[in-house]
Amino acid sequence: MLWSGWGDPALARELPEPVRELLRDLLGVRGPAVPAVPLESVRLPETALDGRVLESLAGIAGAGHVLTSHEARVRHARGKSTPDLLRMRAGDALDAPDAVVLPGSHAEVAALLELCSRERVAVVPFGGGTSVVGGLTPDRSGAGAAFAGVVALDLSRMNRLVGFDAESRVAELEPGLRAPEAERLLAAHGMTLGHFPQSFEYATLGGFAAARSSGQASAGYGRFDDMVVGLTAATPTGTLELGRAPRSAAGPDLRHLLLGSEGALGVITSLRLRVRPVPAEKVYEGWRFPTFREGAAALRALAQDGPLPTVLRLSDETETMVGLARPDALGGGGAGCLVIAGYEGASVAAARAGAGEVLARHGGEPLGEDPGRAWERGRFSAPYLRDSLLAAGATVETLETACFWSGLPRLYDAVRLALLGALGSPLVMCHVSHVYETGASLYFTVVTAQDGDPVEQWAKAKRATLEAIAGAGGTVSHHHGVGRDHREAYAQELGPVGVEALRAVKARLDPRGVLNPGALIP
Amino acid sequence: MLWSGWGDPALARELPEPVRELLRDLLGVRGPAVPAVPLESVRLPETALDGRVLESLAGIAGAGHVLTSHEARVRHARGKSTPDLLRMRAGDALDAPDAVVLPGSHAEVAALLELCSRERVAVVPFGGGTSVVGGLTPDRSGAGAAFAGVVALDLSRMNRLVGFDAESRVAELEPGLRAPEAERLLAAHGMTLGHFPQSFEYATLGGFAAARSSGQASAGYGRFDDMVVGLTAATPTGTLELGRAPRSAAGPDLRHLLLGSEGALGVITSLRLRVRPVPAEKVYEGWRFPTFREGAAALRALAQDGPLPTVLRLSDETETMVGLARPDALGGGGAGCLVIAGYEGASVAAARAGAGEVLARHGGEPLGEDPGRAWERGRFSAPYLRDSLLAAGATVETLETACFWSGLPRLYDAVRLALLGALGSPLVMCHVSHVYETGASLYFTVVTAQDGDPVEQWAKAKRATLEAIAGAGGTVSHHHGVGRDHREAYAQELGPVGVEALRAVKARLDPRGVLNPGALIP
Repeated sequence: MLWSGWGDPALARELPEPVRELLRDLLGVRGPAVPAVPLESVRLPETALDGRVLESLAGIAGAGHVLTSHEARVRHARGKSTPDLLRMRAGDALDAPDAVVLPGSHAEVAALLELCSRERVAVVPFGGGTSVVGGLTPDRSGAGAAFAGVVALDLSRMNRLVGFDAESRVAELEPGLRAPEAERLLAAHGMTLGHFPQSFEYATLGGFAAARSSGQASAGYGRFDDMVVGLTAATPTGTLELGRAPRSAAGPDLRHLLLGSEGALGVITSLRLRVRPVPAEKVYEGWRFPTFREGAAALRALAQDGPLPTVLRLSDETETMVGLARPDALGGGGAGCLVIAGYEGASVAAARAGAGEVLARHGGEPLGEDPGRAWERGRFSAPYLRDSLLAAGATVETLETACFWSGLPRLYDAVRLALLGALGSPLVMCHVSHVYETGASLYFTVVTAQDGDPVEQWAKAKRATLEAIAGAGGTVSHHHGVGRDHREAYAQELGPVGVEALRAVKARLDPRGVLNPGALIP
Repeated sequence: MLWSGWGDPALARELPEPVRELLRDLLGVRGPAVPAVPLESVRLPETALDGRVLESLAGIAGAGHVLTSHEARVRHARGKSTPDLLRMRAGDALDAPDAVVLPGSHAEVAALLELCSRERVAVVPFGGGTSVVGGLTPDRSGAGAAFAGVVALDLSRMNRLVGFDAESRVAELEPGLRAPEAERLLAAHGMTLGHFPQSFEYATLGGFAAARSSGQASAGYGRFDDMVVGLTAATPTGTLELGRAPRSAAGPDLRHLLLGSEGALGVITSLRLRVRPVPAEKVYEGWRFPTFREGAAALRALAQDGPLPTVLRLSDETETMVGLARPDALGGGGAGCLVIAGYEGASVAAARAGAGEVLARHGGEPLGEDPGRAWERGRFSAPYLRDSLLAAGATVETLETACFWSGLPRLYDAVRLALLGALGSPLVMCHVSHVYETGASLYFTVVTAQDGDPVEQWAKAKRATLEAIAGAGGTVSHHHGVGRDHREAYAQELGPVGVEALRAVKARLDPRGVLNPGALIP
């Protein structure tokens, strides 16, 4: 993973000429590309941890599994939000961890948490490092007394398929497994998770669980939290072992307390996940709708009355026009709104025909499989493009929310207006990519010319959108999470009693507050 | 509702002659029927609440909404488990509440909780009074100091359909609504919840949510907790307002902290529920399988690969033989195992044909719609039959659990063995009635001759089954809940760290511990 951006540096994408034109003509982005500083020039804080603590850490995880090198610390600083990347490209990793520890087992994680709690060392669990909401940025100040240091708990060594129960279709997997590797291990049994978020190539299973991830095929496979039937978590107070049955009436479902807990309540060390057979057939196709509203009505009909495709995504007029999903496939100058509908299963003809009927009835025009194939090819590539845009002097960032169907038009307008108001004349694109019977998500991509302080420029726009989302009754995040960037807005959404409930759990499970301090818990 | 048993006394069922024969020949139950004592002879404790507190309660809920009559107190004592009924029939209501308060709004509930917390009066939320796990039995001792008294918070006045969002298919309903009335109100909009547990005729929406209920049509409509997209709860600390979107990544899903909280963390005062169109077609049919194991394999195939019927239920050999579901419809002397498959929707032919193919492929023999109709007619009637059995000198009780598919045979054997070991030669029947991709529930019905102390006789059997369930890796309850009867086993299932997490939330939201003391929280 590129330390200053996304993905394999060999796959870095040059900006296509139409995008350069767009930047120049629409956004006024003209300057020459500015590269990131060299890795060795990135500024780090002095290591705060003394030799005694480092030795104790090595005593648990093994000497080779405690890293304090410049590169290791840079690579574990922050996540992959645009502000994160802007800071990193400028050479600022001043909130990097003091050390990186790589445990190999639940027992090692438990012992490390016990040690760090005793020594008051903050612990930031690190999976793929793909947080886009400040989930990985350590808060050194603590409540009252400062921490003795910050450790990134890199779970990449915990990457095994521990067991597979074919009859129950449950696989036990370790949290440090990256999604492609998990899919490879499951494919050997003919199974898949079906979880394909945009971060798929780098994100880990533990991160999916801790941040309530939702993938591009969520209509068919559900969200990641729907897949978790059991989990083990280590906390400074001891171990939590949850999930004896798919569902239970034995009190509140505490699996849901750890799902979405972002490393602030415990470290997930094992996941029991529902898996499904690898689909024999996969077809993705495109449809064109005259307007976003008509497209949304079609998606709603499919979500409420079926048949529900496996992948279902609707781009608004702007996103369709800019053509992240291959504009030429739409014909006719890219007018209207593109829907991508994907069908996966043992046999997809019936679902495809049934859904096609619903889409056509709602005013959709079939575009065949070309737009579907184009979407499939590019489904994980947007973050690569971002790096080139950042270098070219444009800020590009995404944000997302969700609400019930009847509130969607108001939420859509409110977020767009907030972005236009805050950024002058940005390009604001939106799509619906996760649908439920009662509502859906909205995912916005914003491109704007960088001003002199692009980090603050975006922070201002972000604050405006969070206010707009709250005002329109949306949730602060549908699948990115809370991290540090959404913490205050999250507190508002949760209300004071909800905040107190979370704080109470945090205080009991993590009495010295060392787990990912500053993340999630307001 | 009959105070000493179940349902409308006018619908009380005489024991059919074959059941009398079975009791006599198989279980040795011979004695003459023993009726319950008359209502006026039921023994109650002295009212512990003084006039000042009663006046304060009336000041909030209105003078006509604070009841202290003998009948009101008897009717709010305990739930409807067999031990509850055995005690009530014998005239013992010594743990009845001191008063019954009927609030009319969220604001009144909030004010009552504030008052009761200040005065240290225990509050037991009361919906339909149908708990079968001791969820309604007040614990007067408190932790340390005894409570000043116990109030049953009867929510029956909060019985409105507050709003209906047709576009989002979300209805806002009050918690005191009984299920049939909720269905009637929704039917006026062409909608249904599709939630039909055996307690349907009396149970309330608030109770369904607080106890994580699951209905007979859970395969098609989901569990009740799947229907809850938002809720409001009053706590002594303030109000919780949860659910801005169908799903969110904004931290742990705290809706799941209130769902299953059994009145111990807060009182649910409003529910936003996902509703669906009233199905145009409904067909229930029967299938016969040679063995329970083959039937279970068929159910698993439907749950994992579809098409999934709306209702799916498999009786074991004993239950099929005894024929709670009309033995003559099976033909051939009632051999084998009965499956009831029900299909509901705009059009059911395709699902029925598809599921029929799967059932036949797994060895099922179609029995047509007669067994389905018989099941539909009798689906809520078992509790009526129980009253006659109790009077005749037989104990009949149910218990349930769930686990993953691969563990089901072991769990089934373990529970049966425990019951046989504890009760000598009882009749033990079982069915699978809730299926998931990764597992299923087991629901046991036990009939045995009463010995001299039937309450203790059953308590011993229950302890043995809870140990057997834990040993076989099942959950302490799939849809009955925890209450007081499962509290210790629940603590074991949750583990010490889980217990601490729950206790921490309880202490923060209900600092004086007045909410349903003794229920749920170990």
